[in-house]
Amino acid sequence: MTDTSTTHTIILLRHGQSQWNLENRFTGWTDVDLSDKGREEARLAGKAMKDAGLSPRFFFTSYLKRAIHTLQIAAAEMGLDYIPVIKDWHLNERHYGALQGLDKAETAKLHGAEQVHIWRRSFDVEPPLLTPDDTRWPGNDPMYSQLPADRLPLTESLRDTVARVDACWSELIAPKVMELGTVLIAAHGNSLRGLAMRLLNLTATEVVDLEIPTGKPWVFKTDDRLRVIDSYYL
Amino acid sequence: MTDTSTTHTIILLRHGQSQWNLENRFTGWTDVDLSDKGREEARLAGKAMKDAGLSPRFFFTSYLKRAIHTLQIAAAEMGLDYIPVIKDWHLNERHYGALQGLDKAETAKLHGAEQVHIWRRSFDVEPPLLTPDDTRWPGNDPMYSQLPADRLPLTESLRDTVARVDACWSELIAPKVMELGTVLIAAHGNSLRGLAMRLLNLTATEVVDLEIPTGKPWVFKTDDRLRVIDSYYL
Repeated sequence: MTDTSTTHTIILLRHGQSQWNLENRFTGWTDVDLSDKGREEARLAGKAMKDAGLSPRFFFTSYLKRAIHTLQIAAAEMGLDYIPVIKDWHLNERHYGALQGLDKAETAKLHGAEQVHIWRRSFDVEPPLLTPDDTRWPGNDPMYSQLPADRLPLTESLRDTVARVDACWSELIAPKVMELGTVLIAAHGNSLRGLAMRLLNLTATEVVDLEIPTGKPWVFKTDDRLRVIDSYYL
Repeated sequence: MTDTSTTHTIILLRHGQSQWNLENRFTGWTDVDLSDKGREEARLAGKAMKDAGLSPRFFFTSYLKRAIHTLQIAAAEMGLDYIPVIKDWHLNERHYGALQGLDKAETAKLHGAEQVHIWRRSFDVEPPLLTPDDTRWPGNDPMYSQLPADRLPLTESLRDTVARVDACWSELIAPKVMELGTVLIAAHGNSLRGLAMRLLNLTATEVVDLEIPTGKPWVFKTDDRLRVIDSYYL
Protein backbone atom coordinates (compact mmCIF):
# COMPACT_ATOMS: atom_id res chain seq x y z
CA MET A 1 0.00 0.00 0.00
CA THR A 2 1.23 3.45 -0.85
CA ASP A 3 1.12 6.15 1.76
CA THR A 4 -0.36 9.16 -0.01
CA SER A 5 -0.39 11.55 2.90
CA THR A 6 0.92 14.97 1.90
CA THR A 7 3.64 16.36 4.09
CA HIS A 8 5.33 19.10 2.05
CA THR A 9 4.09 22.08 0.04
CA ILE A 10 5.79 23.85 -2.88
CA ILE A 11 4.16 27.01 -4.24
CA LEU A 12 5.11 28.43 -7.64
CA LEU A 13 4.16 32.02 -8.41
CA ARG A 14 4.70 33.65 -11.80
CA HIS A 15 5.28 37.41 -11.56
CA GLY A 16 2.49 39.75 -12.53
CA GLN A 17 2.34 41.95 -15.62
CA SER A 18 5.52 43.91 -16.39
CA GLN A 19 6.02 47.07 -18.40
CA TRP A 20 7.31 45.06 -21.35
CA ASN A 21 4.45 42.55 -21.29
CA LEU A 22 2.39 45.64 -22.03
CA GLU A 23 4.72 46.59 -24.89
CA ASN A 24 4.82 43.05 -26.39
CA ARG A 25 8.61 42.79 -26.45
CA PHE A 26 10.94 39.84 -25.81
CA THR A 27 11.98 40.47 -22.22
CA GLY A 28 14.17 37.58 -21.04
CA TRP A 29 16.80 38.90 -18.63
CA THR A 30 15.96 42.56 -19.26
CA ASP A 31 15.24 43.90 -15.78
CA VAL A 32 11.91 45.65 -16.28
CA ASP A 33 9.64 46.42 -13.36
CA LEU A 34 6.03 45.41 -12.67
CA SER A 35 3.22 47.53 -14.01
CA ASP A 36 0.55 48.77 -11.59
CA LYS A 37 -1.59 45.84 -12.70
CA GLY A 38 1.33 43.49 -11.95
CA ARG A 39 1.64 44.91 -8.43
CA GLU A 40 -2.05 44.34 -7.84
CA GLU A 41 -1.75 40.77 -9.15
CA ALA A 42 1.04 40.19 -6.62
CA ARG A 43 -1.07 41.56 -3.77
CA LEU A 44 -3.99 39.33 -4.71
CA ALA A 45 -1.67 36.32 -4.92
CA GLY A 46 -0.51 37.05 -1.36
CA LYS A 47 -4.12 37.37 -0.21
CA ALA A 48 -5.07 34.07 -1.88
CA MET A 49 -2.22 32.23 -0.14
CA LYS A 50 -3.08 33.78 3.20
CA ASP A 51 -6.78 32.96 2.81
CA ALA A 52 -5.81 29.38 1.93
CA GLY A 53 -3.88 29.14 5.22
CA LEU A 54 -0.54 28.70 3.46
CA SER A 55 2.50 29.92 5.36
CA PRO A 56 5.78 29.47 3.49
CA ARG A 57 8.86 29.17 5.68
CA PHE A 58 11.36 30.03 2.94
CA PHE A 59 11.28 32.14 -0.23
CA PHE A 60 13.15 31.81 -3.50
CA THR A 61 13.19 34.29 -6.34
CA SER A 62 15.33 35.35 -9.28
CA TYR A 63 17.71 38.31 -9.77
CA LEU A 64 15.02 40.18 -11.72
CA LYS A 65 12.98 42.87 -10.02
CA ARG A 66 9.63 41.89 -11.52
CA ALA A 67 9.90 38.57 -9.63
CA ILE A 68 11.53 40.08 -6.51
CA HIS A 69 8.84 42.75 -6.21
CA THR A 70 6.09 40.19 -6.78
CA LEU A 71 7.51 38.22 -3.86
CA GLN A 72 7.91 41.28 -1.61
CA ILE A 73 4.37 42.48 -2.26
CA ALA A 74 2.86 39.02 -1.73
CA ALA A 75 4.93 38.49 1.44
CA ALA A 76 3.81 41.83 2.88
CA GLU A 77 0.19 40.92 2.17
CA MET A 78 0.71 37.63 4.06
CA GLY A 79 2.50 39.34 6.97
CA LEU A 80 5.57 37.25 6.15
CA ASP A 81 8.13 39.97 5.39
CA TYR A 82 10.62 38.38 7.81
CA ILE A 83 10.81 35.02 6.05
CA PRO A 84 14.33 34.31 4.69
CA VAL A 85 14.83 34.68 0.95
CA ILE A 86 17.39 33.46 -1.57
CA LYS A 87 17.67 35.41 -4.82
CA ASP A 88 19.26 33.16 -7.43
CA TRP A 89 20.00 33.98 -11.08
CA HIS A 90 19.31 30.32 -11.92
CA LEU A 91 15.62 31.21 -11.49
CA ASN A 92 15.79 34.06 -14.05
CA GLU A 93 13.57 34.01 -17.11
CA ARG A 94 14.89 32.20 -20.21
CA HIS A 95 17.57 34.33 -21.91
CA TYR A 96 16.27 35.23 -25.37
CA GLY A 97 19.69 36.01 -26.91
CA ALA A 98 19.68 38.54 -29.72
CA LEU A 99 15.86 38.70 -29.62
CA GLN A 100 15.86 40.45 -26.23
CA GLY A 101 14.29 43.87 -26.40
CA LEU A 102 12.80 43.33 -29.86
CA ASP A 103 9.13 43.87 -30.56
CA LYS A 104 7.47 40.50 -31.12
CA ALA A 105 5.44 41.66 -34.12
CA GLU A 106 8.49 43.30 -35.75
CA THR A 107 10.49 40.12 -35.17
CA ALA A 108 7.79 38.06 -36.87
CA LYS A 109 7.88 40.38 -39.89
CA LEU A 110 11.69 40.13 -40.05
CA HIS A 111 12.17 36.41 -39.51
CA GLY A 112 8.71 35.04 -40.35
CA ALA A 113 6.01 34.02 -37.91
CA GLU A 114 6.96 30.36 -38.22
CA GLN A 115 10.57 30.95 -37.17
CA VAL A 116 9.45 33.03 -34.20
CA HIS A 117 7.02 30.27 -33.23
CA ILE A 118 9.91 27.76 -33.32
CA TRP A 119 12.07 29.99 -31.11
CA ARG A 120 9.27 30.45 -28.63
CA ARG A 121 7.76 27.00 -28.63
CA SER A 122 10.52 24.46 -29.20
CA PHE A 123 12.38 22.76 -26.40
CA ASP A 124 15.90 22.84 -27.77
CA VAL A 125 16.17 25.51 -30.45
CA GLU A 126 18.13 28.58 -29.35
CA PRO A 127 17.31 32.11 -30.49
CA PRO A 128 20.23 33.91 -32.26
CA LEU A 129 23.34 34.32 -30.07
CA LEU A 130 24.45 37.60 -28.58
CA THR A 131 28.08 38.57 -29.01
CA PRO A 132 30.00 39.19 -25.75
CA ASP A 133 30.41 42.88 -26.63
CA ASP A 134 26.60 43.31 -26.70
CA THR A 135 25.28 45.39 -23.79
CA ARG A 136 22.50 42.81 -23.46
CA TRP A 137 25.02 40.09 -22.50
CA PRO A 138 24.83 39.62 -18.70
CA GLY A 139 28.64 39.62 -18.50
CA ASN A 140 28.46 43.36 -19.23
CA ASP A 141 25.98 44.01 -16.41
CA PRO A 142 27.25 44.79 -12.86
CA MET A 143 24.38 42.62 -11.54
CA TYR A 144 26.24 39.54 -12.71
CA SER A 145 29.80 40.68 -12.04
CA GLN A 146 30.21 38.17 -9.20
CA LEU A 147 29.51 35.22 -11.48
CA PRO A 148 31.95 33.42 -13.76
CA ALA A 149 31.52 34.87 -17.26
CA ASP A 150 31.53 31.43 -18.85
CA ARG A 151 28.32 30.53 -17.02
CA LEU A 152 26.41 33.55 -18.33
CA PRO A 153 24.32 32.75 -21.41
CA LEU A 154 24.58 34.37 -24.87
CA THR A 155 21.20 32.77 -25.60
CA GLU A 156 19.17 29.87 -24.23
CA SER A 157 16.90 27.15 -25.47
CA LEU A 158 14.17 26.12 -23.04
CA ARG A 159 16.30 23.04 -22.42
CA ASP A 160 19.16 25.28 -21.21
CA THR A 161 16.82 27.18 -18.89
CA VAL A 162 15.37 23.96 -17.49
CA ALA A 163 18.88 22.60 -16.84
CA ARG A 164 19.96 25.59 -14.73
CA VAL A 165 16.63 25.70 -12.86
CA ASP A 166 17.08 22.00 -12.16
CA ALA A 167 20.45 22.70 -10.54
CA CYS A 168 18.81 25.27 -8.27
CA TRP A 169 16.04 22.82 -7.40
CA SER A 170 18.44 20.05 -6.42
CA GLU A 171 21.00 22.15 -4.59
CA LEU A 172 18.87 24.79 -2.88
CA ILE A 173 15.11 24.40 -3.12
CA ALA A 174 14.52 20.69 -2.48
CA PRO A 175 16.68 20.69 0.70
CA LYS A 176 14.72 23.67 2.08
CA VAL A 177 11.39 21.97 1.32
CA MET A 178 12.60 18.85 3.14
CA GLU A 179 13.80 20.94 6.09
CA LEU A 180 10.95 23.43 6.42
CA GLY A 181 7.84 21.89 4.84
CA THR A 182 6.51 24.81 2.80
CA VAL A 183 8.39 27.08 0.38
CA LEU A 184 7.33 29.70 -2.16
CA ILE A 185 9.18 30.34 -5.42
CA ALA A 186 8.38 33.61 -7.22
CA ALA A 187 9.84 33.52 -10.71
CA HIS A 188 9.13 33.54 -14.45
CA GLY A 189 7.16 31.66 -17.10
CA ASN A 190 10.06 29.56 -18.35
CA SER A 191 11.96 29.03 -15.09
CA LEU A 192 8.71 27.85 -13.48
CA ARG A 193 8.17 25.53 -16.45
CA GLY A 194 11.47 23.97 -15.44
CA LEU A 195 10.29 23.37 -11.88
CA ALA A 196 6.91 22.06 -13.06
CA MET A 197 8.69 19.72 -15.50
CA ARG A 198 10.63 18.20 -12.63
CA LEU A 199 7.73 18.09 -10.18
CA LEU A 200 5.22 16.59 -12.64
CA ASN A 201 7.68 14.52 -14.72
CA LEU A 202 6.60 16.28 -17.91
CA THR A 203 8.01 15.46 -21.34
CA ALA A 204 9.65 18.11 -23.54
CA THR A 205 6.46 18.23 -25.63
CA GLU A 206 4.29 18.69 -22.58
CA VAL A 207 6.45 21.43 -21.08
CA VAL A 208 6.48 23.60 -24.21
CA ASP A 209 2.67 23.50 -24.23
CA LEU A 210 2.42 24.36 -20.53
CA GLU A 211 1.01 27.85 -19.92
CA ILE A 212 1.42 29.14 -16.37
CA PRO A 213 -0.86 32.08 -15.59
CA THR A 214 0.59 35.20 -13.96
CA GLY A 215 -0.15 35.97 -10.33
CA LYS A 216 -1.90 32.64 -9.60
CA PRO A 217 -0.22 30.61 -6.84
CA TRP A 218 0.29 27.04 -8.09
CA VAL A 219 0.33 24.69 -5.12
CA PHE A 220 2.05 21.29 -5.17
CA LYS A 221 1.36 18.92 -2.29
CA THR A 222 3.96 16.18 -2.00
CA ASP A 223 4.78 13.22 0.17
CA ASP A 224 7.91 13.11 2.31
CA ARG A 225 10.03 12.13 -0.73
CA LEU A 226 8.76 15.20 -2.63
CA ARG A 227 6.59 13.12 -4.97
CA VAL A 228 3.61 15.22 -6.04
CA ILE A 229 0.28 13.89 -4.79
CA ASP A 230 -1.88 16.85 -5.68
CA SER A 231 -1.48 20.18 -7.50
CA TYR A 232 -3.88 23.05 -8.03
CA TYR A 233 -4.09 26.76 -8.63
CA LEU A 234 -5.50 29.04 -5.95
CA MET B 1 53.83 54.27 9.83
CA THR B 2 50.17 53.38 9.89
CA ASP B 3 48.44 52.59 6.65
CA THR B 4 45.21 54.59 6.77
CA SER B 5 43.87 53.61 3.40
CA THR B 6 40.19 52.72 3.56
CA THR B 7 39.28 49.42 2.03
CA HIS B 8 35.87 48.51 3.46
CA THR B 9 32.57 50.32 3.86
CA ILE B 10 29.79 49.69 6.40
CA ILE B 11 26.57 51.67 6.05
CA LEU B 12 24.05 51.90 8.90
CA LEU B 13 20.52 53.02 8.08
CA ARG B 14 17.86 53.64 10.71
CA HIS B 15 14.33 53.00 9.42
CA GLY B 16 12.12 55.96 8.63
CA GLN B 17 9.09 57.09 10.58
CA SER B 18 6.65 54.35 11.60
CA GLN B 19 2.98 54.52 12.49
CA TRP B 20 3.80 54.30 16.20
CA ASN B 21 6.48 57.00 16.07
CA LEU B 22 3.57 59.17 15.05
CA GLU B 23 1.53 57.95 18.01
CA ASN B 24 4.37 58.36 20.56
CA ARG B 25 4.17 54.80 21.90
CA PHE B 26 6.93 52.40 23.05
CA THR B 27 7.36 50.22 19.98
CA GLY B 28 10.20 47.76 20.61
CA TRP B 29 9.45 44.48 18.85
CA THR B 30 5.89 45.48 17.92
CA ASP B 31 5.79 44.97 14.15
CA VAL B 32 4.36 48.29 12.95
CA ASP B 33 4.79 49.45 9.38
CA LEU B 34 6.35 52.61 7.97
CA SER B 35 4.23 55.71 7.56
CA ASP B 36 4.12 57.41 4.16
CA LYS B 37 6.76 59.81 5.45
CA GLY B 38 8.90 56.82 6.50
CA ARG B 39 8.65 55.35 3.00
CA GLU B 40 9.74 58.63 1.49
CA GLU B 41 12.69 58.81 3.95
CA ALA B 42 13.72 55.33 2.78
CA ARG B 43 13.57 56.36 -0.87
CA LEU B 44 15.67 59.45 -0.22
CA ALA B 45 18.20 57.34 1.71
CA GLY B 46 18.52 55.08 -1.34
CA LYS B 47 18.95 58.07 -3.61
CA ALA B 48 21.64 59.55 -1.32
CA MET B 49 23.62 56.29 -1.36
CA LYS B 50 23.28 55.98 -5.12
CA ASP B 51 24.34 59.60 -5.66
CA ALA B 52 27.35 58.99 -3.38
CA GLY B 53 28.40 56.09 -5.61
CA LEU B 54 27.91 53.52 -2.84
CA SER B 55 27.02 50.02 -3.98
CA PRO B 56 26.51 47.55 -1.13
CA ARG B 57 27.15 43.93 -2.01
CA PHE B 58 25.22 42.49 0.93
CA PHE B 59 22.24 43.61 3.01
CA PHE B 60 21.31 42.92 6.62
CA THR B 61 18.06 43.82 8.32
CA SER B 62 15.91 42.77 11.27
CA TYR B 63 12.72 40.69 11.45
CA LEU B 64 10.63 43.86 11.71
CA LYS B 65 8.83 45.19 8.66
CA ARG B 66 9.66 48.86 9.27
CA ALA B 67 13.35 47.99 8.79
CA ILE B 68 12.74 45.42 6.02
CA HIS B 69 10.60 47.84 4.01
CA THR B 70 13.14 50.63 4.51
CA LEU B 71 15.76 48.33 3.02
CA GLN B 72 13.53 47.18 0.14
CA ILE B 73 12.59 50.74 -0.82
CA ALA B 74 16.19 52.00 -0.60
CA ALA B 75 17.45 49.01 -2.59
CA ALA B 76 14.88 49.56 -5.34
CA GLU B 77 15.92 53.21 -5.55
CA MET B 78 19.55 52.10 -5.96
CA GLY B 79 18.65 49.45 -8.57
CA LEU B 80 20.04 46.83 -6.17
CA ASP B 81 16.95 44.68 -5.59
CA TYR B 82 18.94 41.52 -6.44
CA ILE B 83 21.55 41.94 -3.68
CA PRO B 84 21.41 39.09 -1.13
CA VAL B 85 19.83 39.85 2.24
CA ILE B 86 19.90 38.28 5.69
CA LYS B 87 17.01 39.09 8.02
CA ASP B 88 18.15 38.48 11.59
CA TRP B 89 16.13 38.98 14.79
CA HIS B 90 19.39 39.94 16.54
CA LEU B 91 19.08 43.26 14.70
CA ASN B 92 15.57 43.92 16.07
CA GLU B 93 14.89 47.04 18.12
CA ARG B 94 15.48 46.82 21.87
CA HIS B 95 12.65 44.87 23.53
CA TYR B 96 10.82 47.23 25.90
CA GLY B 97 9.26 44.51 28.07
CA ALA B 98 5.98 45.46 29.72
CA LEU B 99 6.26 49.02 28.38
CA GLN B 100 5.70 47.88 24.78
CA GLY B 101 2.59 49.41 23.28
CA LEU B 102 2.15 51.97 26.06
CA ASP B 103 1.79 55.65 25.35
CA LYS B 104 4.99 57.42 26.44
CA ALA B 105 3.16 60.32 28.09
CA GLU B 106 0.79 57.97 29.95
CA THR B 107 3.75 55.91 31.12
CA ALA B 108 5.44 59.04 32.47
CA LYS B 109 2.27 59.93 34.41
CA LEU B 110 2.05 56.39 35.82
CA HIS B 111 5.70 55.78 36.74
CA GLY B 112 7.08 59.31 36.87
CA ALA B 113 9.11 61.08 34.22
CA GLU B 114 12.37 60.30 36.00
CA GLN B 115 11.75 56.53 36.00
CA VAL B 116 10.84 56.61 32.32
CA HIS B 117 14.01 58.59 31.61
CA ILE B 118 16.04 55.91 33.44
CA TRP B 119 14.41 53.11 31.43
CA ARG B 120 15.04 54.92 28.18
CA ARG B 121 18.47 56.37 28.83
CA SER B 122 20.39 53.99 31.07
CA PHE B 123 22.69 51.31 29.74
CA ASP B 124 21.81 48.44 32.03
CA VAL B 125 18.40 49.08 33.61
CA GLU B 126 15.65 46.85 32.25
CA PRO B 127 12.04 47.98 31.81
CA PRO B 128 9.48 45.81 33.70
CA LEU B 129 9.46 42.15 32.60
CA LEU B 130 6.72 40.59 30.54
CA THR B 131 5.31 37.30 31.74
CA PRO B 132 5.53 34.41 29.25
CA ASP B 133 1.74 34.30 28.91
CA ASP B 134 1.71 37.90 27.64
CA THR B 135 0.79 38.17 23.95
CA ARG B 136 3.64 40.68 23.65
CA TRP B 137 6.23 38.02 24.48
CA PRO B 138 7.90 36.94 21.18
CA GLY B 139 7.55 33.29 22.22
CA ASN B 140 3.81 33.68 21.56
CA ASP B 141 4.35 35.09 18.06
CA PRO B 142 4.59 32.69 15.05
CA MET B 143 7.37 34.96 13.70
CA TYR B 144 9.72 33.60 16.33
CA SER B 145 8.45 30.02 16.48
CA GLN B 146 11.68 28.71 14.93
CA LEU B 147 13.82 30.14 17.71
CA PRO B 148 14.54 28.59 21.11
CA ALA B 149 12.10 30.16 23.59
CA ASP B 150 14.85 30.69 26.16
CA ARG B 151 16.62 33.13 23.83
CA LEU B 152 13.56 35.35 23.39
CA PRO B 153 13.56 38.35 25.74
CA LEU B 154 10.93 39.24 28.34
CA THR B 155 12.56 42.68 28.46
CA GLU B 156 15.94 44.15 27.57
CA SER B 157 18.37 46.72 28.88
CA LEU B 158 20.38 48.49 26.21
CA ARG B 159 23.27 46.28 27.34
CA ASP B 160 21.23 43.18 26.41
CA THR B 161 20.42 44.61 22.99
CA VAL B 162 24.05 45.52 22.36
CA ALA B 163 25.16 42.00 23.35
CA ARG B 164 22.89 40.27 20.82
CA VAL B 165 23.73 42.78 18.07
CA ASP B 166 27.40 42.14 18.81
CA ALA B 167 26.90 38.43 18.22
CA CYS B 168 25.36 39.21 14.82
CA TRP B 169 28.25 41.54 13.99
CA SER B 170 30.93 38.97 14.79
CA GLU B 171 29.24 35.93 13.28
CA LEU B 172 27.51 37.35 10.21
CA ILE B 173 28.21 40.98 9.37
CA ALA B 174 31.97 41.33 9.84
CA PRO B 175 32.76 38.24 7.70
CA LYS B 176 30.58 39.62 4.88
CA VAL B 177 32.29 43.02 5.06
CA MET B 178 35.68 41.29 4.87
CA GLU B 179 34.51 39.17 1.93
CA LEU B 180 32.58 41.72 -0.10
CA GLY B 181 33.86 45.19 0.84
CA THR B 182 30.60 47.12 1.27
CA VAL B 183 27.50 46.15 3.24
CA LEU B 184 24.33 47.97 4.29
CA ILE B 185 22.51 47.31 7.57
CA ALA B 186 18.95 48.66 7.81
CA ALA B 187 17.77 48.44 11.41
CA HIS B 188 16.64 50.34 14.51
CA GLY B 189 17.79 53.09 16.85
CA ASN B 190 19.07 50.78 19.58
CA SER B 191 20.39 47.93 17.47
CA LEU B 192 22.36 50.44 15.40
CA ARG B 193 23.67 51.96 18.64
CA GLY B 194 25.11 48.53 19.32
CA LEU B 195 26.92 48.45 15.98
CA ALA B 196 28.15 52.04 16.38
CA MET B 197 29.40 51.19 19.90
CA ARG B 198 31.52 48.41 18.48
CA LEU B 199 32.72 50.33 15.42
CA LEU B 200 33.63 53.52 17.31
CA ASN B 201 34.66 51.90 20.63
CA LEU B 202 32.10 53.97 22.53
CA THR B 203 31.65 53.77 26.29
CA ALA B 204 28.28 52.96 27.87
CA THR B 205 27.85 56.64 28.71
CA GLU B 206 28.60 57.68 25.16
CA VAL B 207 26.26 55.15 23.60
CA VAL B 208 23.22 56.14 25.65
CA ASP B 209 23.71 59.74 24.49
CA LEU B 210 24.10 58.73 20.86
CA GLU B 211 21.16 59.85 18.71
CA ILE B 212 21.02 58.26 15.26
CA PRO B 213 18.73 60.15 12.87
CA THR B 214 16.14 58.23 10.82
CA GLY B 215 16.64 57.73 7.09
CA LYS B 216 20.20 59.12 7.01
CA PRO B 217 22.81 56.63 5.77
CA TRP B 218 25.73 56.60 8.23
CA VAL B 219 28.89 55.58 6.38
CA PHE B 220 31.89 53.99 8.12
CA LYS B 221 35.11 53.70 6.13
CA THR B 222 37.50 51.15 7.59
CA ASP B 223 40.90 49.66 6.91
CA ASP B 224 41.33 46.01 6.03
CA ARG B 225 41.08 45.03 9.73
CA LEU B 226 37.73 46.85 9.99
CA ARG B 227 39.18 49.68 12.09
CA VAL B 228 37.18 52.84 11.40
CA ILE B 229 39.19 55.58 9.69
CA ASP B 230 36.33 57.89 8.81
CA SER B 231 32.58 58.11 9.43
CA TYR B 232 29.97 60.54 8.20
CA TYR B 233 26.27 60.90 7.42
CA LEU B 234 25.13 61.33 3.83
